[in-house]
Amino acid sequence: MDSLVEEIKQKFKPKIRPIEWSGDKLVLLDQRLLPFETKYVEARTVVEVANAIRDMVVRGAPAIGITAAFGMVLALVENRPASVEEALKTLAKAREVLSKTRPTAVNLFWALDRMYNKALELASMTSSVREVKEGLEAEAKRIFEEELEAEIRMGLYGAEILEDGSTVLTICNAGGLATGTGLGTATAPIYIASMLGKRVSVIAPETRPWQQGARLTVYELVENGIPTTLIADTAVGLVMYKRMVNIVMVGADRILLDGHVFNKIGTLNEAVLAHEFGIPFYVLAPTSTIDTRSKVEDVKIEERDPDEVRTVRTSQGKVYVTLREVAVYNPVFDVTPPKYITGIITERGIATQPLGINLRKLLKRL
Amino acid sequence: MDSLVEEIKQKFKPKIRPIEWSGDKLVLLDQRLLPFETKYVEARTVVEVANAIRDMVVRGAPAIGITAAFGMVLALVENRPASVEEALKTLAKAREVLSKTRPTAVNLFWALDRMYNKALELASMTSSVREVKEGLEAEAKRIFEEELEAEIRMGLYGAEILEDGSTVLTICNAGGLATGTGLGTATAPIYIASMLGKRVSVIAPETRPWQQGARLTVYELVENGIPTTLIADTAVGLVMYKRMVNIVMVGADRILLDGHVFNKIGTLNEAVLAHEFGIPFYVLAPTSTIDTRSKVEDVKIEERDPDEVRTVRTSQGKVYVTLREVAVYNPVFDVTPPKYITGIITERGIATQPLGINLRKLLKRL
Repeated sequence: MDSLVEEIKQKFKPKIRPIEWSGDKLVLLDQRLLPFETKYVEARTVVEVANAIRDMVVRGAPAIGITAAFGMVLALVENRPASVEEALKTLAKAREVLSKTRPTAVNLFWALDRMYNKALELASMTSSVREVKEGLEAEAKRIFEEELEAEIRMGLYGAEILEDGSTVLTICNAGGLATGTGLGTATAPIYIASMLGKRVSVIAPETRPWQQGARLTVYELVENGIPTTLIADTAVGLVMYKRMVNIVMVGADRILLDGHVFNKIGTLNEAVLAHEFGIPFYVLAPTSTIDTRSKVEDVKIEERDPDEVRTVRTSQGKVYVTLREVAVYNPVFDVTPPKYITGIITERGIATQPLGINLRKLLKRL
Repeated sequence: MDSLVEEIKQKFKPKIRPIEWSGDKLVLLDQRLLPFETKYVEARTVVEVANAIRDMVVRGAPAIGITAAFGMVLALVENRPASVEEALKTLAKAREVLSKTRPTAVNLFWALDRMYNKALELASMTSSVREVKEGLEAEAKRIFEEELEAEIRMGLYGAEILEDGSTVLTICNAGGLATGTGLGTATAPIYIASMLGKRVSVIAPETRPWQQGARLTVYELVENGIPTTLIADTAVGLVMYKRMVNIVMVGADRILLDGHVFNKIGTLNEAVLAHEFGIPFYVLAPTSTIDTRSKVEDVKIEERDPDEVRTVRTSQGKVYVTLREVAVYNPVFDVTPPKYITGIITERGIATQPLGINLRKLLKRL
């Protein structure tokens, strides 16, 4: 598989580049304005990177991690420390500023720690600030490359399942916009199958309340030339009943070892309907998404601002669609029990049923 | 049951009166502005009634029928014909004008025919224009009363199933706004159980693309003092998985004799999820909704303007939420196979499984 991964990496030319590094600045696609406006924001300083993360110019856990990693490099570009010791101080400060942008983003802390530890390692080997900067730049690029490589592997496993002429139902945006690479998780098999000459089309549900399906998935698929049809979330049952889709592919926020999958609200609907109508249902996520400690009853389902359901984000901003004072239940994600899942596709391969056994096997594999 | 129906009819004081008749005019609640504005439109002439139907001031099949019936009375009030013969000519013309407002509304033609036939019957018995007008006014009131009485009967059958403290999941608006009576079909058990002292609350999904749940159901339930929680359509699975609802109650656009139910898009999702999670799923509709001739493969699922999914109707009008050129599949309703339905509640009683046998039995009952 490795040579195929390398080949795809060379060939893969995404039409959307949410994060681009150009040696002394980050160029970030402003995802807040999508799909109405394609505008890029340049970040040349730590504060500019922090603002871009905080204000959600960049979104999606992997994308935030990659952006923060390059933010650490920019700390040195911006401040031009005179010694390696000074460079470490600058980086410690940058890490603090960047870590305060999105307090619950695990990938953010992970990337910042990895960059700082790399700086410590470099500092123990050289007294050249230039070499530290170059080493960190290489490390940030490596974080990006590793993410892309994991997605290519998932994409190759997933693409094998997709037959020529398939239509995929997805949900939300588990795409290249969320991961920052342009490839994505649930979308990786679609892009790669298409690169390999298979005709694949997608049905994307709007995904209220945030409408990531209508705003982001539709945008990136259309930009990449994938035939895409938007539906209301209410229509997911009918498209499966009428066999308008051959397979369901979704992302995951957290996967438990027993196979319970936490993902965007609405995933459970699709899983149960797919199970009932005999349509394969696959979850795509890197093994880093697997939570080996929690039980299903331990995971609290986060609820968000009721106004997200009372309003709609449109080209003209946030507008009300109902009574301002009506009670709302607005859970961010739902939980899909393992029995409804055909398989979980990771960068290490596919775990099929029984998930409780095969996910463990996958984690032991390298 | 008859005395109970009479008692409810006396006691029932809906907070919302979509259609009110005051002897020489109709007062119609303008449903286009809900829930942001409660405004009434007065109609004193046939043209004003026709405009109100065409422009969707009034919506919902039963409500349109009732409105058109009173429109026939207004034809006589407005034109003051000198003879019964002239009155019949006036009515024929009014029928033509009113029938052209919503070309696919079965209830509209049914109500207009019934009113015109009543006029012919009256004309054969009297030469007094006043008596014809009074007879027609009584007939229009009877159409309204019959609708209300059927809903009260459905409501009583349904209320019996609702336990004290129940939470009902519904979809769209099968409420008093759609039927014109203020009571509705799927909402009738909720209002009546509440009148009878049971505590009942409702979870209403937004129901994209038209958002009748967010705009109309939320409005009428809140106005009538029923505790109501709005959710995104994506959350219907989780509220059932978490047992936040005890029962599902929905309306129907068409019911086949074998038990297939055509209703608002999204109904199938709720039915399959309810079946999977062991939650009773009931359909409420008058027996006039039963189509005794069609087979499931005969019924074409109507598709509507793609812009309904690309946009959202808000307090600030219609605004885009996605790319203007993206392909859209926008079916108006879906079909729920009988196996997912616990029972169909009509004014003649409840048909339970096997629906194919029990619906026929119900139709033979009086």
